[in-house]
Amino acid sequence: MKSYIVEAVSSFLFEYETPRQVLVRNRRVGIACRLIQLGVLGYIIGWVFIYEKGYQNEDTAIYSVFTKMKGVAYTQISGVEKVWDVSDYAFPDQGGDSFVVMTNFIITFGQTQSKCPELPDGKNNCNSDADCETGQIKRTGNGHMTGKCVNTTHTCEIVTWCPVEDDRQIPNPPCLLAAENFTLFIKNSITFPEFKVDRSNLVESVDASYIKRCLYHPATDPLCPIFKLGDIVRLSGFNFTEVARVGGSIGVLIDWECDLDYSIQNCKPKYKFHGLYGSGTTGQASVGYNFRKANYYVEDKVQKRTLMKVFGLRIEVIVHGLARKFDIIPTLTAIGSGVGIFGVATVVCDLMLLHLLPKRNLYKNMKFKYTEILDGEPDETRMTDHCEGNAPLFTQQCDA
Amino acid sequence: MKSYIVEAVSSFLFEYETPRQVLVRNRRVGIACRLIQLGVLGYIIGWVFIYEKGYQNEDTAIYSVFTKMKGVAYTQISGVEKVWDVSDYAFPDQGGDSFVVMTNFIITFGQTQSKCPELPDGKNNCNSDADCETGQIKRTGNGHMTGKCVNTTHTCEIVTWCPVEDDRQIPNPPCLLAAENFTLFIKNSITFPEFKVDRSNLVESVDASYIKRCLYHPATDPLCPIFKLGDIVRLSGFNFTEVARVGGSIGVLIDWECDLDYSIQNCKPKYKFHGLYGSGTTGQASVGYNFRKANYYVEDKVQKRTLMKVFGLRIEVIVHGLARKFDIIPTLTAIGSGVGIFGVATVVCDLMLLHLLPKRNLYKNMKFKYTEILDGEPDETRMTDHCEGNAPLFTQQCDA
Amino acid sequence: MKSYIVEAVSSFLFEYETPRQVLVRNRRVGIACRLIQLGVLGYIIGWVFIYEKGYQNEDTAIYSVFTKMKGVAYTQISGVEKVWDVSDYAFPDQGGDSFVVMTNFIITFGQTQSKCPELPDGKNNCNSDADCETGQIKRTGNGHMTGKCVNTTHTCEIVTWCPVEDDRQIPNPPCLLAAENFTLFIKNSITFPEFKVDRSNLVESVDASYIKRCLYHPATDPLCPIFKLGDIVRLSGFNFTEVARVGGSIGVLIDWECDLDYSIQNCKPKYKFHGLYGSGTTGQASVGYNFRKANYYVEDKVQKRTLMKVFGLRIEVIVHGLARKFDIIPTLTAIGSGVGIFGVATVVCDLMLLHLLPKRNLYKNMKFKYTEILDGEPDETRMTDHCEGNAPLFTQQCDA
Repeated sequence: MKSYIVEAVSSFLFEYETPRQVLVRNRRVGIACRLIQLGVLGYIIGWVFIYEKGYQNEDTAIYSVFTKMKGVAYTQISGVEKVWDVSDYAFPDQGGDSFVVMTNFIITFGQTQSKCPELPDGKNNCNSDADCETGQIKRTGNGHMTGKCVNTTHTCEIVTWCPVEDDRQIPNPPCLLAAENFTLFIKNSITFPEFKVDRSNLVESVDASYIKRCLYHPATDPLCPIFKLGDIVRLSGFNFTEVARVGGSIGVLIDWECDLDYSIQNCKPKYKFHGLYGSGTTGQASVGYNFRKANYYVEDKVQKRTLMKVFGLRIEVIVHGLARKFDIIPTLTAIGSGVGIFGVATVVCDLMLLHLLPKRNLYKNMKFKYTEILDGEPDETRMTDHCEGNAPLFTQQCDA
Repeated sequence: MKSYIVEAVSSFLFEYETPRQVLVRNRRVGIACRLIQLGVLGYIIGWVFIYEKGYQNEDTAIYSVFTKMKGVAYTQISGVEKVWDVSDYAFPDQGGDSFVVMTNFIITFGQTQSKCPELPDGKNNCNSDADCETGQIKRTGNGHMTGKCVNTTHTCEIVTWCPVEDDRQIPNPPCLLAAENFTLFIKNSITFPEFKVDRSNLVESVDASYIKRCLYHPATDPLCPIFKLGDIVRLSGFNFTEVARVGGSIGVLIDWECDLDYSIQNCKPKYKFHGLYGSGTTGQASVGYNFRKANYYVEDKVQKRTLMKVFGLRIEVIVHGLARKFDIIPTLTAIGSGVGIFGVATVVCDLMLLHLLPKRNLYKNMKFKYTEILDGEPDETRMTDHCEGNAPLFTQQCDA
Repeated sequence: MKSYIVEAVSSFLFEYETPRQVLVRNRRVGIACRLIQLGVLGYIIGWVFIYEKGYQNEDTAIYSVFTKMKGVAYTQISGVEKVWDVSDYAFPDQGGDSFVVMTNFIITFGQTQSKCPELPDGKNNCNSDADCETGQIKRTGNGHMTGKCVNTTHTCEIVTWCPVEDDRQIPNPPCLLAAENFTLFIKNSITFPEFKVDRSNLVESVDASYIKRCLYHPATDPLCPIFKLGDIVRLSGFNFTEVARVGGSIGVLIDWECDLDYSIQNCKPKYKFHGLYGSGTTGQASVGYNFRKANYYVEDKVQKRTLMKVFGLRIEVIVHGLARKFDIIPTLTAIGSGVGIFGVATVVCDLMLLHLLPKRNLYKNMKFKYTEILDGEPDETRMTDHCEGNAPLFTQQCDA
């Protein structure tokens, strides 16, 4: 028993199995197969390894974005001078990855809760008090109807913040056209957790002195993190005046594609700009960008608010980070798959060899050895080499 | 030398190697192996290719979300009529992917920095001045203790924004129950950077006229991007009145699963709603959603603020975008793996053939050719075919 | 014809092909090959399956974060007592995944739109009116120049919010050093859409009573979702006093790595803290974090604002969720690749066998059967076994 196990183990250890093969010396088959194999090899090396970098592992980034606007605008509306600084035109204040730069606005000063007629914009007309059902709120209306139809405006009287905002006319040219020269500073910090790599968009070549004077330009200053608002709008395919008037959304994409097999210094961001939701193209269901903002205060013991309909550029900084690095697992997986595909090449060549060539039967006999043992007839054990033509002296002759 | 290289190259080029195989004619083995191979083939084609679409490459989306609330609410609190519009009940104003719709609130008007007693809510009781250590701030307290215990409330006197907010009673029913009828409009733009595909949730069938009149309904209007707040709450499994009272968080998931091998028009969003953090289920550690918001103003040269404890629906629009498209790399990787798994089928069949069948020794002899060259005895070179029974005339006989 | 098909089908069904192999009994080759194969097997099982869990499918999380600050600070600036609560020092109010805790500030009360000289900070000096071009806005300036050079300050007169903020001195020590004791509560809900698993960071062991008294500590309370601000700063490698003075950004990373093959209760978050953008390290291009915030009000019919330059901790809660679960596809892909890599082992062993061993020619003859059919000479069909030395009686002899 013991000796049997020892023998089995030693025969397992000291034996090596290798497939027996037929070496077919045939120019056509040989070249065809070598070409197929070369194709597969070229695909594996050229495409999977070099082009797609199949030997690398991927990791997506976690990131943080900080933005800061700079610039001052001067307006003169109905003779009143006013200067707008960052606190006045950028919302929210904190400088996150999504913010709005106001470029146009409609201000309604000193609204109070009281009764006043609806805006005569055609959607809320009335002819008599019967058209204004007491206590109801129209879907297109701004408040709670008192049941009275106001003669002067032919609209229902409502309880709401009065006076009602009149947004029938969007100022043209936009109030803050000067926003074109505002600058945006973006700080972006990025981490690839799997590779334990941290990067910032203030890369080695972007030092303190460079930042003080640089301005992003796609060709000459592609790494400068300071952007002119007008440039951003232009690079995203919009017309500044048009977008400034009705508002719009722009995505600033920071694209990190890092091959960490090279020096970390080559891991640099690329800035891309693209308009979101389109702007003014025909057929677009919903155009422009605006929102309303209220500042509340108390005057003479009365709660009041200043309502501002803000049209502006909504800027979203979107970070897309992808790092790759050599890793043994994807490398071996790619090699393993490659060897598998090599097997496919062999199958194709065999099909050609065994079915298409004139001498296919010869090759068949060389490749295969036949045995026929039919289940029902356990005693019948015929072994044949299916040679064609005249019977051979020894059946083994074909097997030579 | 040269001719040797030429010969080597030509023999490499013109030769084709193919493994020699035994063709076992045995019904049981044949059928069993074909079944195993069929299973593997079925798995590769059916599961990997058709079900899991292993021939496709994946890409996750980068996206941008814009939201806009609409609706007006009317309240009559202690006889004071008030109308609430979007600027009053939605925070923040800008319409990002995460915002709050106020549904209930506790207002404390006209707070100033001064001295007043703590709220008698049981957490800050005192019996004598000794309980109120001067200059300390209790963890449960709202301000800086002056060291005095106020007799009327039996709480410490503190320096803070006075009067202290009394939030012991949450208004019930919620003040802005009308929020149920507010509508939410979501614009979502999505980009698959690898496939260079841009989509918006305003798909082809959602045109300007449809948007004007539609309202999302999971069965009849699954693509309408306008949602009634009450529907959102109901679809996420909450009770509106309860959530409106104490607040809650709801995720609006926009799910894009796009098979870009089909027309881009089939790439449509699916809206899903689910409650975040639960709402009122027993054992939940932290229920509801609220935050405090202050509006600062100056009255009679004194800095004041109106504090609002806001209970509301926090809505988070979460986008999950995944596109798939045919790509040669995953296809060939899948095929390569498949061929590898075929090899496993062969191993299983061989095990059966060589160890389980009655004629296993016969098959062993047909499959294997033995050679024994023992390292220490380089001269001893025996080659044997282990035939059973009577010795053959020629050793080759078994090899037939 | 029909019988031909039947025969083809039956021969396909009842036949089983298995490669013929040479069993080389050679200790060196055997052990070497077994070692190589063992290495490959060890790699596949140990690395791919156990270490990298190649039998599992991955899914990244969609998530939602809710934060709430708690704490009160007391300041005494120029004899004026003031208490700061959450509404005063946390921006924005809503408690999202990114917010700022004010730790230091410069307040400019009661700014109005009027004319005043620029701040004499050295950047905007003038000697005569000629240095102040009427109607221009300097890049370093705060407003619209009137063309006058003010004698007292030697700076240009501008139209802007007056008085101009004086931020030449950052208060030191920071005004709200008490922020160190503020606490941050984080609720994080996470969903793995592919596996249909929902989790919250309030895991089973974090119940209502535990939350009331716990405070996060990396060693003793790693699951408590309540963090002291001072701890967060310290754990991210910063000095609180320094960061409180000039501001800074900190990422709170909630790391979910869930192996869903185990009980869902083992799916717990890990909290990590790291400073974003660095803080004060030399060579850093942009240090600190600050923004300006304005509160607008009307006093005596005049629009005014209180401007606050806020220095603070910007906290970003970043969620990184990755779940893994057994899945048949990656398992079989890994096995398939493994079998492929086994093929590589065979290739290496064959190279050794056929090119390095003294008896290589013998093995070559056993492994290969040669056939030479040259295309141009279809009649010439020679089959040879390249035996060495004396010619054999039967060519088959070597094949034995």
